[in-house]
Amino acid sequence: MEAQMKIAVLGTGDVGRTIATKLVELGHHVVLGSRSPDNEKASAWSAAHEERAEHGDFARAAAHGEWVFNCVGGMVALDALEAAGAENLAGKIVIDLANPLDFSKGMPPTLSVCNDDSLAEQIQRAHPQAKVVKTLNTMNCQVMVDPSRLPGVHDVFVAGEDVQAKAEVGALLRSFGWTQIVDLGGIQAARGLEMWLPLWLKLWGAVGSGDFNIHVVKADA
Amino acid sequence: MEAQMKIAVLGTGDVGRTIATKLVELGHHVVLGSRSPDNEKASAWSAAHEERAEHGDFARAAAHGEWVFNCVGGMVALDALEAAGAENLAGKIVIDLANPLDFSKGMPPTLSVCNDDSLAEQIQRAHPQAKVVKTLNTMNCQVMVDPSRLPGVHDVFVAGEDVQAKAEVGALLRSFGWTQIVDLGGIQAARGLEMWLPLWLKLWGAVGSGDFNIHVVKADA
Repeated sequence: MEAQMKIAVLGTGDVGRTIATKLVELGHHVVLGSRSPDNEKASAWSAAHEERAEHGDFARAAAHGEWVFNCVGGMVALDALEAAGAENLAGKIVIDLANPLDFSKGMPPTLSVCNDDSLAEQIQRAHPQAKVVKTLNTMNCQVMVDPSRLPGVHDVFVAGEDVQAKAEVGALLRSFGWTQIVDLGGIQAARGLEMWLPLWLKLWGAVGSGDFNIHVVKADA
Repeated sequence: MEAQMKIAVLGTGDVGRTIATKLVELGHHVVLGSRSPDNEKASAWSAAHEERAEHGDFARAAAHGEWVFNCVGGMVALDALEAAGAENLAGKIVIDLANPLDFSKGMPPTLSVCNDDSLAEQIQRAHPQAKVVKTLNTMNCQVMVDPSRLPGVHDVFVAGEDVQAKAEVGALLRSFGWTQIVDLGGIQAARGLEMWLPLWLKLWGAVGSGDFNIHVVKADA
């Protein structure tokens, strides 16, 4: 990971804009990508972060990025990455933050893929030349970019096939303030990370906000 | 919850014997239940814990218990509870610790039910007069009965329809040493508790043992 990188952030929702803003603050040059090149949220965001911030359609963003953050909704992630273009993802680190939550059948949402597959695995299969790393999907976006907002130690997880890619993503996570980064192994571990969401949603109700995370407590060495 | 109760523990595996032993140590009178009345593990266990410890088939155990712990494998739980007898479960607190892990298709195991249903919901539907409380399924059995083996605060979850039953189960959990008991609401929350298992299994690999648990870290009030 270099000090200043060109990064694509796909998705103009809360997650995408929060990640994009953090990356710009850290000195990276971000193109925020959306389905249409004149998305209003993306225009407003790039206007508000003039320096090092642009916007464009998925393909333009992905072509710009040395790395690509997938922050679109999980139900449309495969379509968005197809629109981004396989040639614009090949050889690059693709950081997948999406959760395949399907709200179409009412509450609670279900997962559109789970148990013997995951969204991250689907993305990796669709883009075999990309280096997909699943991370950050287990918490809300305020916590993603500012872990110090919660007291004490808590954890972020990474999963992916490419060890070097996970190390580089780990360096980026440390620049966000993360100190506890747990490597769960290959991309298949994304099943567990995505299947965490139903419990996360119930905890949201129990805690009364999404402002929480988990810490893995181990026996003393 | 009374100081000394009659409790059925269904299942003679590590989980069942560990729970049964803890209950006997706390002064409760336990019948350890198995499919056949002359199960070797159950015989050995009751011989080793002579006072307040007996064994028998599922129906004899359930008939004995004022409370029933379901500690059989998740794939056979519905059968075991049917064998226990609806009449022996009606009106009682049934504490469901089972996870519907299916190892028959190789590793990693999948869940035989998830996403839009859960084992605990299936049990509650099959035994509408029982008060099913899902708890303790999110950790290994050493941690279940001795939370102090891990440093600091970490959490156990409860889910179920009957508020009074959850309160009584909470009192039992406190007698095990639990201080952080998080009520996730109705039995539907068991989906999240069971879907946690794929992540737990990957954490087992990352930690290098099952001797861990999670703590929900919240923003300071």
